[in-house]
Amino acid sequence: MPTNQQIVLDNRPQGEATVSNFKLVTTETPALADGQVLVRHHYLSLDPYMRGRMNDSKSYAASQPLGEVMIGGTVGEVVESKHPKLKAGDPVVGMGGWQQYSVVDATQPGALRKVDTTHVPLSYYLGAVGMPGVTAWYGLVKIINPQAGETMVVSAATGAVGSAFAALAKARGCRVVGIAGGPDKCAYAVDELGFDACIDYKLHPDMYSLAKALKQACPNGVDGYFENVGGMVLDAVLLRMNAFGRIAVCGMIAGYDGQPLPLANPALILVNRLKMEGFIVSEHMEVWPEALTELGTLVATGKLRPRETIAQGIENAPEAFLGLLKGKNFGKQLVKLI
Amino acid sequence: MPTNQQIVLDNRPQGEATVSNFKLVTTETPALADGQVLVRHHYLSLDPYMRGRMNDSKSYAASQPLGEVMIGGTVGEVVESKHPKLKAGDPVVGMGGWQQYSVVDATQPGALRKVDTTHVPLSYYLGAVGMPGVTAWYGLVKIINPQAGETMVVSAATGAVGSAFAALAKARGCRVVGIAGGPDKCAYAVDELGFDACIDYKLHPDMYSLAKALKQACPNGVDGYFENVGGMVLDAVLLRMNAFGRIAVCGMIAGYDGQPLPLANPALILVNRLKMEGFIVSEHMEVWPEALTELGTLVATGKLRPRETIAQGIENAPEAFLGLLKGKNFGKQLVKLI
Repeated sequence: MPTNQQIVLDNRPQGEATVSNFKLVTTETPALADGQVLVRHHYLSLDPYMRGRMNDSKSYAASQPLGEVMIGGTVGEVVESKHPKLKAGDPVVGMGGWQQYSVVDATQPGALRKVDTTHVPLSYYLGAVGMPGVTAWYGLVKIINPQAGETMVVSAATGAVGSAFAALAKARGCRVVGIAGGPDKCAYAVDELGFDACIDYKLHPDMYSLAKALKQACPNGVDGYFENVGGMVLDAVLLRMNAFGRIAVCGMIAGYDGQPLPLANPALILVNRLKMEGFIVSEHMEVWPEALTELGTLVATGKLRPRETIAQGIENAPEAFLGLLKGKNFGKQLVKLI
Repeated sequence: MPTNQQIVLDNRPQGEATVSNFKLVTTETPALADGQVLVRHHYLSLDPYMRGRMNDSKSYAASQPLGEVMIGGTVGEVVESKHPKLKAGDPVVGMGGWQQYSVVDATQPGALRKVDTTHVPLSYYLGAVGMPGVTAWYGLVKIINPQAGETMVVSAATGAVGSAFAALAKARGCRVVGIAGGPDKCAYAVDELGFDACIDYKLHPDMYSLAKALKQACPNGVDGYFENVGGMVLDAVLLRMNAFGRIAVCGMIAGYDGQPLPLANPALILVNRLKMEGFIVSEHMEVWPEALTELGTLVATGKLRPRETIAQGIENAPEAFLGLLKGKNFGKQLVKLI
């Protein structure tokens, strides 16, 4: 059996996460039992939710146990199979973790999904046609429920979720405004991703300045907001929400590292009769087929052209992950493992 | 025609509202045109939403114009009528404002509603079987959507909204926990209003202390929260919300006087996948008949026994209102005008 390089969580962050929280270990992949398959990972997905798992405190879900392989989505190919429906060479997506190989009990429902790479590149199943894409779909369709002509705003606009959000909202006849960090990302959002406008939050020292920019970009106010970051950006958007606006809360990356970041003016929820709802897409598996069908079509027809930032080698996953938390990535952050 | 004492808004509060913001004026009631009726008010309702109207800034609705009679709900009797369906002596509820009499164009839909005082005292149409009762009903039924066995929490528990909320939630098989100010109110909540427990927030210096008391009173966590006050109380309840909890935001009285009060940890909305929704009951007139029917039945069967605090005379309305904002009232705050 092949050797398997893995990244385990060695210790929990005190404040900001660092590379010293992780440890690279090498193991042998075990022999397969009946129903199991050995998957060689081509790509590992890096996603903001992983930062929450690194803390000991209550987060989205259970903490990542110390000394175990970091969890994470992966795409790869079956290299050995003791399951009747999977054979060597099959492209599959699963939750293989931060490692080169995984042994998967393929009899467990949802553990491994065979995918079609005819029209959609394998890596996209970790992004636009995967968990981030479905995340955008759920927040937009199930929480925001956009109407044609409404204005939608999304933070982390050029990321995997943001870029899918833009394509999905444009397909529903909305004006879509992004918030991103830096002129390159903002230009890319408008030129390549179909955003009607994109605001560089780094130009704005406080929420009032950012709210002023939002007013210009959203002359009819904001009806739906997809929250990926929290902090000042959320405060600014709240100031521009229309009556009966809806906010899908998907991430609050700004507050992952330490003390909770307060919300400046929660009374606006009342004043403007807003709905604000948090969600985790893995709790809504019933929408995945419908969402993935739409996302796959948007990719196949060129209406969603996601960008990827690809680190090379499992040993570089921690640094790539820390960069993601600081917005250094451009589009979907992946680690190539082959 | 009779003389009519009125309270007008003379100037806007700078920070805390004071009696000097109001002015008592005396006018003559005008002669009636066709379709109009003259109503003598028996009771004026005082409600927290009025504080928002006194500010110039955007609030629930349009600001109260300076120099005009303060808006407010009233019950009274028709003393003169030029409308075919109303006659002298008819008990009616309307938005007569802070004054002894009002001239109402009864041809306008919803301007004046004739009520039945056989089983329900007239004043209750301003409380349990009026706007506050429907407010509790809407937040509970339409936003929180409680399931039998769940735990519901309401702040300002012994007020007009809170007491109706308790009866409505108990009728749905929930555990109901109140938050109120002082031992008398808490005892009353449990002994008379049917709360399973009531927490005196004045005993708690910070949100962590209050959250600890909530943990004791809500051993299975909090599934639904009806928010009347904001500030520290909201922060504390958020710490105890269960996954998929629902928060109906009806009032944030704590923040009416000045700078916005921040929300300490909005990331909890994501962590616990909460829904938080603001509403104004006057925008949901379609639910009023159903809600009033249930509330009237709860009162008639003794399952909802609201308490009233009654000030005497229109000249005392401002002071009674300021007391309401500080929680000095016990149950529904009214002003008796006859």
